[in-house]
Amino acid sequence: MRLMRIGEPGHERPAVAVGEHEYVDVSEHVADFDEAFFAAGGLRDLPGLVEAGAPRPLAGERIGAPIARPHQIVCIGLNYRDHAAESGMPVPTEPIVFSKSPNTLVGPDDDVVMPRGATKLDWEVELGIVVGSRASYLDSPAAAWDAIAGYVLVNDVSERAFQLERGGQWVKGKSAATFNPAGPWLVTPDEVGDVMDLGMSLDVNGVRRQSGSTATMIFDPAEILRYLSQFMVLEPGDLINTGTPPGVALGMAEPAYLVPGDVMELRIDRLGSARQRVVPAV
Amino acid sequence: MRLMRIGEPGHERPAVAVGEHEYVDVSEHVADFDEAFFAAGGLRDLPGLVEAGAPRPLAGERIGAPIARPHQIVCIGLNYRDHAAESGMPVPTEPIVFSKSPNTLVGPDDDVVMPRGATKLDWEVELGIVVGSRASYLDSPAAAWDAIAGYVLVNDVSERAFQLERGGQWVKGKSAATFNPAGPWLVTPDEVGDVMDLGMSLDVNGVRRQSGSTATMIFDPAEILRYLSQFMVLEPGDLINTGTPPGVALGMAEPAYLVPGDVMELRIDRLGSARQRVVPAV
Repeated sequence: MRLMRIGEPGHERPAVAVGEHEYVDVSEHVADFDEAFFAAGGLRDLPGLVEAGAPRPLAGERIGAPIARPHQIVCIGLNYRDHAAESGMPVPTEPIVFSKSPNTLVGPDDDVVMPRGATKLDWEVELGIVVGSRASYLDSPAAAWDAIAGYVLVNDVSERAFQLERGGQWVKGKSAATFNPAGPWLVTPDEVGDVMDLGMSLDVNGVRRQSGSTATMIFDPAEILRYLSQFMVLEPGDLINTGTPPGVALGMAEPAYLVPGDVMELRIDRLGSARQRVVPAV
Repeated sequence: MRLMRIGEPGHERPAVAVGEHEYVDVSEHVADFDEAFFAAGGLRDLPGLVEAGAPRPLAGERIGAPIARPHQIVCIGLNYRDHAAESGMPVPTEPIVFSKSPNTLVGPDDDVVMPRGATKLDWEVELGIVVGSRASYLDSPAAAWDAIAGYVLVNDVSERAFQLERGGQWVKGKSAATFNPAGPWLVTPDEVGDVMDLGMSLDVNGVRRQSGSTATMIFDPAEILRYLSQFMVLEPGDLINTGTPPGVALGMAEPAYLVPGDVMELRIDRLGSARQRVVPAV
């Protein structure tokens, strides 16, 4: 299944995608794709709701992030072998963990706002994991795979000067409004197939900047969940950004950081595509 | 006013303290002290509810954190001059920012669970700020003071090996379950008086370990809010831990890290006192 949320910001209705151009609105039965929904095992009831519903056309609708604002957004850094090599960094022996403010979450085609004072705005196409059930001290890969509700295409937008030149912890450069576009869909694992073999790319103004595959991830989704659950309790609906492949601006000899007017287009196999325009802060 | 939440974990009822030994339950009129409450300006209606209510005795009641699980918990590091000096660290020129998982929030007298594998469990008595209204790009101290709902006594519990020896970002050692005891009260600014002149202390097993005053804070609450609001949007009900004075285990020549059975007792002038026992993870 491919879960979506459709409607204006703050008023999205939960829905399920049907084919490429339609969706079934499930908002009569489901309040939102949020912590309570996942905790109650709400995914189980969706196929019946879709069967009983009437598909509507997607054309003209705004697509929101496919999940409600989560309890937390946790991110993994430097999780692609080829990205580590490109950066001249050693391959991490355990996951590098940071976080970003949950209210950074926006839809896949929403504008990305360049914060006031920003000079080094950067992109990161990533595989996002949505947690399906409360997870603490997971003790096996099987238990970790079971705790995954599905996957989502995300852009882990960063301001590198805020992140790296303003006194320490990365959260400072990861948390500005609109810094976490996600979607169009939350895709359940059965429709993703082999999550460790998904091609992914990101273009800026039509120029291919990132090109990679989840095949070069260092820590796979189950290991990430198992690892994180040793340090924190993951709640249903939590979002985990799993790291980015090579090709971010920060890694370029002459970084082509984003400026207002730039357009990012990103995709991951089976998770769809997204398109964000950079606009100045008001 | 001193806001409280009373009842078993997950079932706390919002209340207002009356004197030292009583409270008025306001749960018939207020769903919770959460984002929606603060966003709607719910503080304004509380005096009337208290006037109309019947005080009940506090004795025998469990006290929860005085706010519901917030959208985010943001923390400031190294924010006391004397602590920076003690650590041999330069005084930061701008706030050091990190975050912890919001589900770390527990009541002031709840047990602190030592995580599996923990070896360097540490304490940090801190002044917590609760955000009263949505804040982005605050442009003056006055605007920042206006965005503060009140103050709360917190313990920013840390596992130093997880924080500092496991690959980078501090969130890894700050986010275990029970790592953010808070309360007993959220005290509104009018009852706090001069927030920059509050004595504070923390004892472990009856031995004074931390002793300080908000007078040695480097960045005051208004400056912290103003600064954070340049990098992220603060939501009503967000909790900000503002840093700890000298005397944490990490700073000792031979660190006396916490072990199960240890008891922490902490207090801040006008914000009350709290007591947490360390228990092993199950």
